[in-house]
Amino acid sequence: MAQGQTPVTAEDGLTTRQRRTSPLVVVHSGEGKGKSTAAFGLALRGWSQGWSIGVFQFVKSAKWRIGEETALLALDEVHRSTGQGGPVQWNKMGSGWSWSRKAGTEEDHAADAREGWAEIKRRLAEQAHTLYVLDEFTYPMKWGWVDVDDVVDTLQSRPGYQHVVITGRNPDPRLLSVADVATEMTKLAHPFDRGQKGQKGIEW
Amino acid sequence: MAQGQTPVTAEDGLTTRQRRTSPLVVVHSGEGKGKSTAAFGLALRGWSQGWSIGVFQFVKSAKWRIGEETALLALDEVHRSTGQGGPVQWNKMGSGWSWSRKAGTEEDHAADAREGWAEIKRRLAEQAHTLYVLDEFTYPMKWGWVDVDDVVDTLQSRPGYQHVVITGRNPDPRLLSVADVATEMTKLAHPFDRGQKGQKGIEW
Repeated sequence: MAQGQTPVTAEDGLTTRQRRTSPLVVVHSGEGKGKSTAAFGLALRGWSQGWSIGVFQFVKSAKWRIGEETALLALDEVHRSTGQGGPVQWNKMGSGWSWSRKAGTEEDHAADAREGWAEIKRRLAEQAHTLYVLDEFTYPMKWGWVDVDDVVDTLQSRPGYQHVVITGRNPDPRLLSVADVATEMTKLAHPFDRGQKGQKGIEW
Repeated sequence: MAQGQTPVTAEDGLTTRQRRTSPLVVVHSGEGKGKSTAAFGLALRGWSQGWSIGVFQFVKSAKWRIGEETALLALDEVHRSTGQGGPVQWNKMGSGWSWSRKAGTEEDHAADAREGWAEIKRRLAEQAHTLYVLDEFTYPMKWGWVDVDDVVDTLQSRPGYQHVVITGRNPDPRLLSVADVATEMTKLAHPFDRGQKGQKGIEW
């Protein structure tokens, strides 16, 4: 199917322009590689469109700064100095949020996750960004730290033109039911299976 | 599994350092979204590591410049002006290569594809880049324009430390057999199914 073509006729009463400007909920799940990588790739596209990008990392990057952060913040700097592209704001929950460093108790981690989600809700209400990347956000939902129904209701009632990309394994079926695009990354082969270690530039 | 951990013990006689620096062949296939997006996300990571990135777009972007091109070339400019990150070189086969614009005959397109692959072979021999993104390269292989065995032999015998990411549907089993990381993107839901049109920033 060529880009921009559509295999079925829409019966939603929207014009082509209205459909083209529908804000999307995108979910990247599965056991394979590429869930977060593809989400940050979407941020790359959004940047080129001049969108405001808000990244919220829920688990990764407590221990290190991933390459995407460096690169997307470099693009934010390009935007600020030349006006090209859009602003990028990076929120690394791991730096304030401690669960992946195994510090604190589970109660602390749950409170941190809820605090992060509360901030995202505020920003959605304020229409702070055009694209939100909620990286590994399925885990706090799975662990019961963030209420899935609240997430679903918030996503469905969000105002304006705001895309939300959520990554992580085992997304709740209620989340998938409101996803406009849901892709499962399935592992066909991975070097970890034969003892390959993670490496710079590929894994982070 | 935590990042950097490995579930089995390697029996390849390599040290951890040697395994960490193994150059990889990565294949992103499947019917779902995210094949190319995740490949360009890897380019983001590689840029942060200071790698030389070579992108070869085999089908897309004959008609338009995709957002990733704009953003990655902005990062190339950052590299050239500040030394941060690495150089990015973008080769849009669609601009010289005409098949996706429906100009020329199939013979022209096959010759163009072979010419592109010959250039990639030269660069691999010269170790021109650390990361190659061969976007939608499965199609010229599938269509018989580029010889799969030649691709496999070239990848397996490539010198030095060069990662190669290949995207596209229906990768040949011979290609998959030499992939170190192969992820299939499976569509769980997509707005095209209900008549949603492609839109700026999400599709390109």
